[in-house]
Amino acid sequence: MRLPVIEDPALVDVALVGVPFDGGTTNRPGARHGPREMRNQSSLLRRINANGVAPYDTLRVADLGDCPVNPIDLMDSLRKIQAFFETIAAAGAIPIAAGGDHLITLPILRALAKQPVGLIHFDAHSDTNDKYFGENRYTHGTPFRRAVEEGLLDARRCVQIGLRGTYYHESDWDFPREAGIRTITMEEAADRGAADLMEEVRAIAGDLPVYISFDIDSLDPAFAPGTGTPEIGGFTTREAQRMLRSLGGLNIIGADVVEVSPPFDPSGLTAYTGAAMMFEILCAIAEGR
Amino acid sequence: MRLPVIEDPALVDVALVGVPFDGGTTNRPGARHGPREMRNQSSLLRRINANGVAPYDTLRVADLGDCPVNPIDLMDSLRKIQAFFETIAAAGAIPIAAGGDHLITLPILRALAKQPVGLIHFDAHSDTNDKYFGENRYTHGTPFRRAVEEGLLDARRCVQIGLRGTYYHESDWDFPREAGIRTITMEEAADRGAADLMEEVRAIAGDLPVYISFDIDSLDPAFAPGTGTPEIGGFTTREAQRMLRSLGGLNIIGADVVEVSPPFDPSGLTAYTGAAMMFEILCAIAEGR
Amino acid sequence: MRLPVIEDPALVDVALVGVPFDGGTTNRPGARHGPREMRNQSSLLRRINANGVAPYDTLRVADLGDCPVNPIDLMDSLRKIQAFFETIAAAGAIPIAAGGDHLITLPILRALAKQPVGLIHFDAHSDTNDKYFGENRYTHGTPFRRAVEEGLLDARRCVQIGLRGTYYHESDWDFPREAGIRTITMEEAADRGAADLMEEVRAIAGDLPVYISFDIDSLDPAFAPGTGTPEIGGFTTREAQRMLRSLGGLNIIGADVVEVSPPFDPSGLTAYTGAAMMFEILCAIAEGR
Amino acid sequence: MRLPVIEDPALVDVALVGVPFDGGTTNRPGARHGPREMRNQSSLLRRINANGVAPYDTLRVADLGDCPVNPIDLMDSLRKIQAFFETIAAAGAIPIAAGGDHLITLPILRALAKQPVGLIHFDAHSDTNDKYFGENRYTHGTPFRRAVEEGLLDARRCVQIGLRGTYYHESDWDFPREAGIRTITMEEAADRGAADLMEEVRAIAGDLPVYISFDIDSLDPAFAPGTGTPEIGGFTTREAQRMLRSLGGLNIIGADVVEVSPPFDPSGLTAYTGAAMMFEILCAIAEGR
Amino acid sequence: MRLPVIEDPALVDVALVGVPFDGGTTNRPGARHGPREMRNQSSLLRRINANGVAPYDTLRVADLGDCPVNPIDLMDSLRKIQAFFETIAAAGAIPIAAGGDHLITLPILRALAKQPVGLIHFDAHSDTNDKYFGENRYTHGTPFRRAVEEGLLDARRCVQIGLRGTYYHESDWDFPREAGIRTITMEEAADRGAADLMEEVRAIAGDLPVYISFDIDSLDPAFAPGTGTPEIGGFTTREAQRMLRSLGGLNIIGADVVEVSPPFDPSGLTAYTGAAMMFEILCAIAEGR
Amino acid sequence: MRLPVIEDPALVDVALVGVPFDGGTTNRPGARHGPREMRNQSSLLRRINANGVAPYDTLRVADLGDCPVNPIDLMDSLRKIQAFFETIAAAGAIPIAAGGDHLITLPILRALAKQPVGLIHFDAHSDTNDKYFGENRYTHGTPFRRAVEEGLLDARRCVQIGLRGTYYHESDWDFPREAGIRTITMEEAADRGAADLMEEVRAIAGDLPVYISFDIDSLDPAFAPGTGTPEIGGFTTREAQRMLRSLGGLNIIGADVVEVSPPFDPSGLTAYTGAAMMFEILCAIAEGR
Repeated sequence: MRLPVIEDPALVDVALVGVPFDGGTTNRPGARHGPREMRNQSSLLRRINANGVAPYDTLRVADLGDCPVNPIDLMDSLRKIQAFFETIAAAGAIPIAAGGDHLITLPILRALAKQPVGLIHFDAHSDTNDKYFGENRYTHGTPFRRAVEEGLLDARRCVQIGLRGTYYHESDWDFPREAGIRTITMEEAADRGAADLMEEVRAIAGDLPVYISFDIDSLDPAFAPGTGTPEIGGFTTREAQRMLRSLGGLNIIGADVVEVSPPFDPSGLTAYTGAAMMFEILCAIAEGR
Repeated sequence: MRLPVIEDPALVDVALVGVPFDGGTTNRPGARHGPREMRNQSSLLRRINANGVAPYDTLRVADLGDCPVNPIDLMDSLRKIQAFFETIAAAGAIPIAAGGDHLITLPILRALAKQPVGLIHFDAHSDTNDKYFGENRYTHGTPFRRAVEEGLLDARRCVQIGLRGTYYHESDWDFPREAGIRTITMEEAADRGAADLMEEVRAIAGDLPVYISFDIDSLDPAFAPGTGTPEIGGFTTREAQRMLRSLGGLNIIGADVVEVSPPFDPSGLTAYTGAAMMFEILCAIAEGR
Repeated sequence: MRLPVIEDPALVDVALVGVPFDGGTTNRPGARHGPREMRNQSSLLRRINANGVAPYDTLRVADLGDCPVNPIDLMDSLRKIQAFFETIAAAGAIPIAAGGDHLITLPILRALAKQPVGLIHFDAHSDTNDKYFGENRYTHGTPFRRAVEEGLLDARRCVQIGLRGTYYHESDWDFPREAGIRTITMEEAADRGAADLMEEVRAIAGDLPVYISFDIDSLDPAFAPGTGTPEIGGFTTREAQRMLRSLGGLNIIGADVVEVSPPFDPSGLTAYTGAAMMFEILCAIAEGR
Repeated sequence: MRLPVIEDPALVDVALVGVPFDGGTTNRPGARHGPREMRNQSSLLRRINANGVAPYDTLRVADLGDCPVNPIDLMDSLRKIQAFFETIAAAGAIPIAAGGDHLITLPILRALAKQPVGLIHFDAHSDTNDKYFGENRYTHGTPFRRAVEEGLLDARRCVQIGLRGTYYHESDWDFPREAGIRTITMEEAADRGAADLMEEVRAIAGDLPVYISFDIDSLDPAFAPGTGTPEIGGFTTREAQRMLRSLGGLNIIGADVVEVSPPFDPSGLTAYTGAAMMFEILCAIAEGR
Repeated sequence: MRLPVIEDPALVDVALVGVPFDGGTTNRPGARHGPREMRNQSSLLRRINANGVAPYDTLRVADLGDCPVNPIDLMDSLRKIQAFFETIAAAGAIPIAAGGDHLITLPILRALAKQPVGLIHFDAHSDTNDKYFGENRYTHGTPFRRAVEEGLLDARRCVQIGLRGTYYHESDWDFPREAGIRTITMEEAADRGAADLMEEVRAIAGDLPVYISFDIDSLDPAFAPGTGTPEIGGFTTREAQRMLRSLGGLNIIGADVVEVSPPFDPSGLTAYTGAAMMFEILCAIAEGR
Repeated sequence: MRLPVIEDPALVDVALVGVPFDGGTTNRPGARHGPREMRNQSSLLRRINANGVAPYDTLRVADLGDCPVNPIDLMDSLRKIQAFFETIAAAGAIPIAAGGDHLITLPILRALAKQPVGLIHFDAHSDTNDKYFGENRYTHGTPFRRAVEEGLLDARRCVQIGLRGTYYHESDWDFPREAGIRTITMEEAADRGAADLMEEVRAIAGDLPVYISFDIDSLDPAFAPGTGTPEIGGFTTREAQRMLRSLGGLNIIGADVVEVSPPFDPSGLTAYTGAAMMFEILCAIAEGR
């Protein structure tokens, strides 16, 4: 976004951070290259969004570069990511992370959530599975179950929007239902429209701290083919912009845009779209000031 | 779809079959490779659709492999396809075919339609032309005229949805109009919405045997570029899923998804979409049991 | 469109013309190859549009080939383009131009607008900036400001539809607002729908001469990726067809489809879409006779 | 090649002809679009080859357009192609055909070979198989066996260069060996180099009439990926240019460049390469005058 | 290669095995999808290679499917791979593995090398680095150092062919030099030619057990773009075929073809090339019987 | 190349500079994006070339960023480029430019050539044409004629290597021949081999100041498809590396790598290759110290 590169988070209000890690990916890897391409494509973005919000007028914003990770060691990466975001949190800056796969949300929440926080989560999948490949508890399919279990999220203030993939077992939905997470399927979202839907979403989030997690696969693959687990029948970018533009005024403590996978995005449009979504979240934060 | 490969149709309720033939294609070939790629991409599908339908709980489903065809000889291919599906019909299984170009529907109907059946046909084109290149009566632009002429279809119980291509002559619409086929243009479909539209479609089909034919070019090429005759202004995958999910309970005797052309589908998303449409049709059959 | 190639504009009612010039492009070039690819892809179009309009029954239409341009010299190109379209105007033919970048609209208007004309302009961007790179007043971001300043356009009869890009300064909107151009954002267009929207648009245009300018980036990049400045959140082709089909009966004196950039359009679908939009404009002209 | 389009073969010395037929293809179709793309790409060719041969100074050359074919009926296509080339032969023009799959060489030879002629054949495969799919004797894997059987070729004056694919049975080589066709494998060609190799080839052809058939898959797929049956380990374009440039002075009665398949050639370089090979053959014919 | 799928290694002489693991990749992932695509593309291979070797006449060969791996846990994957190949070794079969990244060679050697074995290694890189990202000793850049350290390889009987990448430190070459591994740069290989080069290579390998490891990036990226770390200036496929065809008669105990990365191989030619290299190795094993 | 970004040329020995200008391109534009992509791809390069040359050990090297240009005004761009390189020359640094189209060489030579200098020029085309589109004397087809006319080049010390394109008129070669420029065709280069060829080239350049200009289209399009005017039959990257590695010790005063056009380079390999060629030139400069 043609932003200054600044290393000290104490100098900014909002810190953009790349997290080039996809070691939690169970199927098609590549999201590790998401931050680089989102940076490249973000040069197409200008200063003011279509609603007239000019975030740089009221916020100090900078690109803090990429968070250190270890592509060979998942547990070491979780530690490194958490440590990096703890520094940002300690400096009082609000981070917007560019993933990487969805597992990165877990160490970010560990760094930010001093107490259980709310969640507004756009995704084709619930990502609340338990274990993969036997006993592996940390993959890009499990972060929100782990975050609830670890007390990072207040399940009653969590909402998942756009769920629509086929699934394996009826029991896949037990965890979110029993935990009290509000799940909104793509069909329900399409029937109600963005205005009605986001009124409920804002009510769930309330005035307390809330985290925004935007999985690019919430979008239809016609609009965002560059992702590891595409699901047809998703949101258009127009709908997504509408939803993100309705988040202004919430108490946003952090956010991420994840699962942008450049090897499956030859035109670069998915990375551009990811950057544009980060910009809309930035505008929502600016409106909250 | 990670299904068992079984050769004996008597052991299954629903038989998935590839028909790798595009000899009826008048313009851009390639649909002969559709079955292989739909199989590849179908590994992304899981067991239960977004509405909670779990077809494998109530139906025995298997992949019967590819039907024999002759890429060099059209008339020989029509005979081979008909013979293969007659075996399936004799065994009491319901076939869902993966094409191949749209001409394959004709020999399948010859095998299945003991008496005139109904038809629910999703397509950008009516495919009721008469002759091509002089006296050629069998191409992917003629199967439904031939099927009506041969008494395989009951025109009053046939409906075509999504028609929208430019066309050559005013007289192109004479055959379906005179035969009594209900034609629903894309504009009408968009104005009415899936719920209202499909109520009429179900009424047309009634309780008698009906065949489902889904041409992938009924979808907009933004969603399904991998096809031989793309037409802009088509259905989204979200709309198509809605329509197919409303077919539950009908008396479906067979179905096909045709015109997926992998050479024009470098990302594989069209083949994946075709497989997902087959899965929705399978769920509709399961709901009818 | 499989049309005759005719060099004498006096023999036709509507003249299709390629303008292979992208020297006004400030970012990603390539629109100079637009005419060639739109011609190639137009072979997929047939004689009658989906609403039954058959333009060749009432209009003499031909492809006049490419207008001479100078890829090395912008000012020379502006002169050459103006001269070519003056010949067409003198012959009494209505031109539909295939760009080329959006700067080509300026010399075309200089040739056609004997007095200030109305404008129906589909675009993600207003293209009413003032200067670039210091003192450069002629780029693809400035044609409509220049055209108003030069008295070619009657600003009160101008309407811009689909504006949505991020922008640089609050003052970017000063010119259209002060000039009295009606600007309709994408959000407003989406909320109102094509029928309501186009009623206002037709009222703005009135019965006097009006020019139609269709920038392919008014479409969402999922539908038209092959363009120099893609903006997410745009129109679908279905919406665009609806809007263009409502222009019948207006007093159209010329039109263009611009910014189709084949190097960013590997599948050719954007060029095909551009050709299809030209065909709908042709049908609208035919309805006006 | 920016040539005039002329329909009367009597007005030219060399006639370029497209043969958009791939009905003989047993695996990946698409060569039917070869002529169109070779024409498009040939606009990059200029008047004189790198050796200084200027064919248009001594020969009247024109593009005769596409030969009629029937994509639905193989035998009808063979008749149509033969008839078209008989007209050319009767007019005394030398045809250079742009395929199309390799089966088109058979009807061309039927039209041209008043008596058995010689053959210089560049290919990864011998194309002298007997039957496919049971009793089908006419496919792109059989034309040279048929041509020998029909007395169109003088096997002792036939040479095949660049053979290298894996094969099915030891007996696959029985026919060319017993007929007396000289087969030169890729390994032999690489070991000897173009100069030594072509000396033998010219000796085999002698002074009597000879036909040149250039299958684009004789090139390595790194240089020509856009073909139906790619075989690694092939010629570079530099080697191919060398070989074709050594054919000057032979008694060439016709030629073809076949198996260019645009759907597998997204960059267009294979079609461009095919057109460049046609130009080198044209230069060789010019040197023979 | 259209082979039977057999699960019991005791029934075969040569076992083809997929190892879909790229957890050792430090830069661009994707090689985990290599086995699937090599299988798909291998359907283009026939029974006999260009030198007339027909491996299925003398060897029982089967596809044993994919070795179990854990995409989330590198150390667990090393154990699983070793265990799988120990079963094959115990059954007396010779494995040819389709990677996966180059780290997979280490657990395969642990399973096969009862005593230090020789190595013929084609690669742009030596892959004898020590540690990455601090203390990580197991990546695709370290397997051959580990294998020497663990006593799996007899360094004096190891040869690396085609080394050419730029590198970081002069000390990068200390390990192979001190261990006594023969390293042949691309420049040396090009100067000497395949015949002279392979004479030395065969002498190094001798008559004792030897393992063949073919990294697809030994090929030039014009021939094999689909790999994680492409290096320009590499082998042509023709040269590679020559070299592999000279290995007949060696005492080959196992082999692999690694680093085929389908996300960077849109045409599928790299996967096809990888499968063709496996077939040549198979022929070399057959010649040794 | 992971270099520091430094703005003051006085602090460096060698300055890498992007020149994002393609306004001199007469056919396919896009080279303006070359610098950005060469920078991106250069992250794959390490510190030492395959011959052991470590340029950063003896030279201070930095990326000076992009030279200002004006995409709308060719003559203004020529002035801006000349001024920027005059600053570099005044500071005593040697520039290596990343183009941009080949016209950029002219203003660079104007800045560097205090007296006529020698030239080593790798290209498929001579680029010594006179005028285009009437009176336009400055395009990417004319820089070397202009440079000789302006006394920037000493024609007797100029050599052009790899010429091979088809051409328009016999007179196209008059200028270089009459001026005394040594032109080496691709055929001659291939016949002689790099060692013999470069001995002559070094002799032509002698000990006096010489400029290196590397047009990426000197490479075969199989190795470098991403360029505006591809010509088949060109150099391999292996040959090009050989030639550039033989330039060590010459008195190099500047260099460029031009005509890398990212829109025609979807894999990024051409940009990577361009960056690798810049690195080899840098190594040659280092050897000269």
